[in-house]
Amino acid sequence: MSSTFGHTFRVSTFGESHGPAIGVIVDGCPPRLALDVADVQQDLDRRRPGQSRLVTQRNEADQVELLSGLFEGRTTGTAISMMVRNDDQNSGAYDHLREVYRPSHADFTYDAKYGFRDHRGGGRSSARETIGRVAAGAVARKLLHVVAGIEVVGWVSQIHDLETDLDAATLTRHDVEASPTRCPDQRVAAAMVAAIEAARAAGDSLGGVVTCVARNVPAGLGEPVFDKIDADLAKAMLSLPAAKGFEIGSGFAGTRLTGVQHNDPFQPAASPGGSPRTTTNHSGGVQGGLSNGQPILFRVAFKPTATIASPQQTVTREGSAATLAARGRHDPCVLPRAVPLVEAMCCLVVADHWLRQRSVDVLARNDHDH
Amino acid sequence: MSSTFGHTFRVSTFGESHGPAIGVIVDGCPPRLALDVADVQQDLDRRRPGQSRLVTQRNEADQVELLSGLFEGRTTGTAISMMVRNDDQNSGAYDHLREVYRPSHADFTYDAKYGFRDHRGGGRSSARETIGRVAAGAVARKLLHVVAGIEVVGWVSQIHDLETDLDAATLTRHDVEASPTRCPDQRVAAAMVAAIEAARAAGDSLGGVVTCVARNVPAGLGEPVFDKIDADLAKAMLSLPAAKGFEIGSGFAGTRLTGVQHNDPFQPAASPGGSPRTTTNHSGGVQGGLSNGQPILFRVAFKPTATIASPQQTVTREGSAATLAARGRHDPCVLPRAVPLVEAMCCLVVADHWLRQRSVDVLARNDHDH
Amino acid sequence: MSSTFGHTFRVSTFGESHGPAIGVIVDGCPPRLALDVADVQQDLDRRRPGQSRLVTQRNEADQVELLSGLFEGRTTGTAISMMVRNDDQNSGAYDHLREVYRPSHADFTYDAKYGFRDHRGGGRSSARETIGRVAAGAVARKLLHVVAGIEVVGWVSQIHDLETDLDAATLTRHDVEASPTRCPDQRVAAAMVAAIEAARAAGDSLGGVVTCVARNVPAGLGEPVFDKIDADLAKAMLSLPAAKGFEIGSGFAGTRLTGVQHNDPFQPAASPGGSPRTTTNHSGGVQGGLSNGQPILFRVAFKPTATIASPQQTVTREGSAATLAARGRHDPCVLPRAVPLVEAMCCLVVADHWLRQRSVDVLARNDHDH
Amino acid sequence: MSSTFGHTFRVSTFGESHGPAIGVIVDGCPPRLALDVADVQQDLDRRRPGQSRLVTQRNEADQVELLSGLFEGRTTGTAISMMVRNDDQNSGAYDHLREVYRPSHADFTYDAKYGFRDHRGGGRSSARETIGRVAAGAVARKLLHVVAGIEVVGWVSQIHDLETDLDAATLTRHDVEASPTRCPDQRVAAAMVAAIEAARAAGDSLGGVVTCVARNVPAGLGEPVFDKIDADLAKAMLSLPAAKGFEIGSGFAGTRLTGVQHNDPFQPAASPGGSPRTTTNHSGGVQGGLSNGQPILFRVAFKPTATIASPQQTVTREGSAATLAARGRHDPCVLPRAVPLVEAMCCLVVADHWLRQRSVDVLARNDHDH
Repeated sequence: MSSTFGHTFRVSTFGESHGPAIGVIVDGCPPRLALDVADVQQDLDRRRPGQSRLVTQRNEADQVELLSGLFEGRTTGTAISMMVRNDDQNSGAYDHLREVYRPSHADFTYDAKYGFRDHRGGGRSSARETIGRVAAGAVARKLLHVVAGIEVVGWVSQIHDLETDLDAATLTRHDVEASPTRCPDQRVAAAMVAAIEAARAAGDSLGGVVTCVARNVPAGLGEPVFDKIDADLAKAMLSLPAAKGFEIGSGFAGTRLTGVQHNDPFQPAASPGGSPRTTTNHSGGVQGGLSNGQPILFRVAFKPTATIASPQQTVTREGSAATLAARGRHDPCVLPRAVPLVEAMCCLVVADHWLRQRSVDVLARNDHDH
Repeated sequence: MSSTFGHTFRVSTFGESHGPAIGVIVDGCPPRLALDVADVQQDLDRRRPGQSRLVTQRNEADQVELLSGLFEGRTTGTAISMMVRNDDQNSGAYDHLREVYRPSHADFTYDAKYGFRDHRGGGRSSARETIGRVAAGAVARKLLHVVAGIEVVGWVSQIHDLETDLDAATLTRHDVEASPTRCPDQRVAAAMVAAIEAARAAGDSLGGVVTCVARNVPAGLGEPVFDKIDADLAKAMLSLPAAKGFEIGSGFAGTRLTGVQHNDPFQPAASPGGSPRTTTNHSGGVQGGLSNGQPILFRVAFKPTATIASPQQTVTREGSAATLAARGRHDPCVLPRAVPLVEAMCCLVVADHWLRQRSVDVLARNDHDH
Repeated sequence: MSSTFGHTFRVSTFGESHGPAIGVIVDGCPPRLALDVADVQQDLDRRRPGQSRLVTQRNEADQVELLSGLFEGRTTGTAISMMVRNDDQNSGAYDHLREVYRPSHADFTYDAKYGFRDHRGGGRSSARETIGRVAAGAVARKLLHVVAGIEVVGWVSQIHDLETDLDAATLTRHDVEASPTRCPDQRVAAAMVAAIEAARAAGDSLGGVVTCVARNVPAGLGEPVFDKIDADLAKAMLSLPAAKGFEIGSGFAGTRLTGVQHNDPFQPAASPGGSPRTTTNHSGGVQGGLSNGQPILFRVAFKPTATIASPQQTVTREGSAATLAARGRHDPCVLPRAVPLVEAMCCLVVADHWLRQRSVDVLARNDHDH
Repeated sequence: MSSTFGHTFRVSTFGESHGPAIGVIVDGCPPRLALDVADVQQDLDRRRPGQSRLVTQRNEADQVELLSGLFEGRTTGTAISMMVRNDDQNSGAYDHLREVYRPSHADFTYDAKYGFRDHRGGGRSSARETIGRVAAGAVARKLLHVVAGIEVVGWVSQIHDLETDLDAATLTRHDVEASPTRCPDQRVAAAMVAAIEAARAAGDSLGGVVTCVARNVPAGLGEPVFDKIDADLAKAMLSLPAAKGFEIGSGFAGTRLTGVQHNDPFQPAASPGGSPRTTTNHSGGVQGGLSNGQPILFRVAFKPTATIASPQQTVTREGSAATLAARGRHDPCVLPRAVPLVEAMCCLVVADHWLRQRSVDVLARNDHDH
């Protein structure tokens, strides 16, 4: 069950770094949604290796194949399955990892859990696993666009100690894609490129933060108690490889404000019959676990890539001390490629809650007045 | 489904602030666990109002009743149900909130979602909802102690700009309970008391951070991909009222380290046949979503209490501008009472994954050698 | 999780025969549904012991208390909890069962599963467990009536070798309640009364069949593959105590027809824009796991009550041979009281699928024409 | 979520009759189980078309490809994915069904649900969908064999009015495979062959019953209340195409026995320390929803194939009357091919409950004595 996510819009993924294929089943997408392979491929292209000199040079086209759930260009309402073949599997490059644990990877923990492990490229713990998420997220993104005009945009807001503070209200994907760093602040982006290249040259790696906004989300999405929309976002984001933190709205910084400073005052709707708005958005678009109609704004921390070329102290499967230096291809900084992952997971969560709300809003709204 | 949490150790809660009762069903607790009302009551007593001058003066004993799942002092393996009656329901105190939205509360979002709302004390969005979680968490805590010697300790590590940095390896509940702040650093705790009382006097409120550690968790708990143990912890924590952020191990600060600095080197086990250890714990006890045998260490951000006595700008249900000043009883700072909530949710997550691992570890470990 | 049922309209039950209370949480009921205690009590009254001389004389009023989820007479959309106290617990009457297994009861299997068992009245395996189901079913019934005019009627169609064949299209609850047997065929019902009384006098017991119809179910409810509406009904019915079989439409008898005889021919709708109808209903209202707009018609087999006064051969917990004769109060035939159980589970399944369909039917119906 | 089944051993399927491929994800299979493609292919070969003259002549090899979850011939513990390409897609043969509903098929109900339908070969409602189930069932079968020596054997016990009564205790797959009817009673099987061929010649079709036994299932599998093992079997079986009924043990016939006749007396274990046995098995191996150690024995009714060559009265999508006669390839009787489906679903249910029991049986069994 570890491979399934979502309640009403539900995805189940499969695949390892060096197995035959990686893919996903999307169950619960409504019927009659126009969908073609390009809708999915464009998000996969933003995730795939080799797209810029900043990321791993593993050379995979990651061409998706739609296996089910479509008929004459529209979803049928039944399970959509999508698959990407693994092509560039230089598995021999991992032979030296068969008996040794890479620090801060999942090698030891998989062995501890399963007593057994596919050591090639991390197996199921590889970031290639996220291909299925991105493909599913593309379907969710399309659905949200069509049913509600919702748009989800993520960007790199920090790498190492380089950070930027941009206006979440107006940033577009076009802005984000302008730099291979996916930081839409050109001056900071240039410094980030230099930092990433310096880290690679030094056999080191960098971490950072992705910020993401979901705009046009109607008020009322999310469920009380456990399935709060921010709780589901937190789970979604912490399930991404290398993620170490999540905060929504004011987050950790907000703990240093007082209630008078932090509360978001309401003001009347801009037009009659509209929803009230807030003059600030410390809530990050979520109050009591439900969306309030303001932009949903959150940040995800990614640690520096665990795979580094510098020698490291570790142990073998048998428990002896050993020294390891990474070989093979890897990203010195995952942040640029993390953006489509964060967006995909955000789309999955919002689509799930949008559909769940359909079963809540059943009886006429004015019933309670009578 | 919003009221159910967990896969194998599963809890479902019910109840509102001003309804007849609040409670929980715990489904999946193994049979033959010795359990009595005191095991549960002691955690509820740490959560209940009126326990110190720092917290709300709502006067509720919050005495729990065990309704099912026990026989002769042991769990039967079937659903355990526990209930607390609501006694001190001064519902009239909330009449003025019937037609107005409290800023940064769930009033507006519940109305947006349901077209209808129990305005008394926040209804289902009230922090009284967490009684069921704490009761269930007490059962999980007992189970974890008996089956694996696991212990979970949380404490207040920051209120507003007052913070402390303590050694998670050795802190005990006794240390934590020494101050009504639940900050086990006496010097900082004294300053926190003063800050909370000043905030109350000023009609203001404060936020902060709870840090929590789970010790003696065996390596291998958690599931790949979506049900990573840190992902489930993130969801659990963000589902708590007023939570705005979660980080594990190095968290957001770790994004400013490089890979060379951040990776946790392995060293051989202390004794033959033991597990390898790490010399640092930037991972926070979790690698690839699975526990690695080191202490699981995480932090949760709580915003300043939304209920404040100072006047605030808001709107009515009909959309007109209004000014609101809180009446009724409330906590100027939720942090002290948040500690048992964080612990309870942590116990629920770890117990769930400990039980899930039982269905993984089925075939003999040395099979793969043949 | 054994105590939770349903996907979108989800119920979780708790309670044993001789514990303090029995109850249920209903999660996912839409907001603003008018609901009061009488809506629930009337179904519980049809289930409770002592209602006629045909059923167990355990004397329990089974008065339900609504603990959460309601405000000013309407559902709030959050978890509804309901509870019945156990009053007439003559637990001492079960002392002789502590160390011996009743044949065809769950005594041995609970011990085998849990290594431990509450021997008083069957504990969790007691039919008193169904109180929670009936209470939840009453909420589902009300919802289905309000949103779609759906009505669910069950009746006793067979006891032992006495059976009747009535027109499912028109039977009403009033017809069913006319006899304490809940068989609406007066002549057969009189014979059933005599048969039940004879069985009781002989220290024996009888089984039979409940037939149930759901009328006005719109076409299209159910989900392909696993969550077919008939599959969910089958699970729901086999989860009832003493149930041994389920069939829908033509069922087992239909296996003796040929395809030419069995297929249900379509005919045009009665009025323009209506749905096509079938001239026969061998399908029982379900085709391919989805409702087709015809009455959903199914039958459930219940074995003769396992508790009998005649002496029986059995074994003790330690494995020695023993002879057992039932004491205590019991039903010589569960069929009359099984009717509200079957109806309740049917209401739960249909309500769940009605709500699930809301998240399917999202995009405009005529989209596919363009 | 309609495409997911199981709690701890969980399968999710995808694919339509005329899409590119059909497949399944198996999530929750324990690690280190030896598994190769032949383990899966042998069950698929028993399901595939064209295996005998009795079944559809659609010519598909149905060769399975294992896409994930295996490493060096053993399961890794992560998601196993398997896929079969659709080869012989004579989709044009279905053009005449685009605008007309086949009686007693899912054509109308899919249109009613989704407003849209893949008319080619039934789309998702095609029996080809069961390929994923059979592949997953083969994994479950292997697991059950290795961990517990459990074996599951099904056979055709009735076609139309031809039936047989065989000893479930000793029948083997070898016996069953001796006839293309999968009825292991040679005399009856010969009559069944003649009956099926006569039905085909007459443009007609036949239904029947599959009986299935699970042997060596330990006592205690299943969960109280809703997830009873017989309830899960009932859902599993009714989810199969063309299934109309399920009964366990004495089933519907048992309703005509009295309690004295029906109860299964216990007798002491055959050897010291063993489990008590029952002298009869009216319970079908399940008491109170939990296995009792006796063979689990159940029967599944399948209606006559809905696809027949004889002309039938129906309506078009626009609602006009029409006459339809089937073209294309189909089975005049699905029973022989239903056997591997019933076995597969039985293996899935038993494997799921076997694994679930692992999280129940955690504390030492003799604890309750102290």
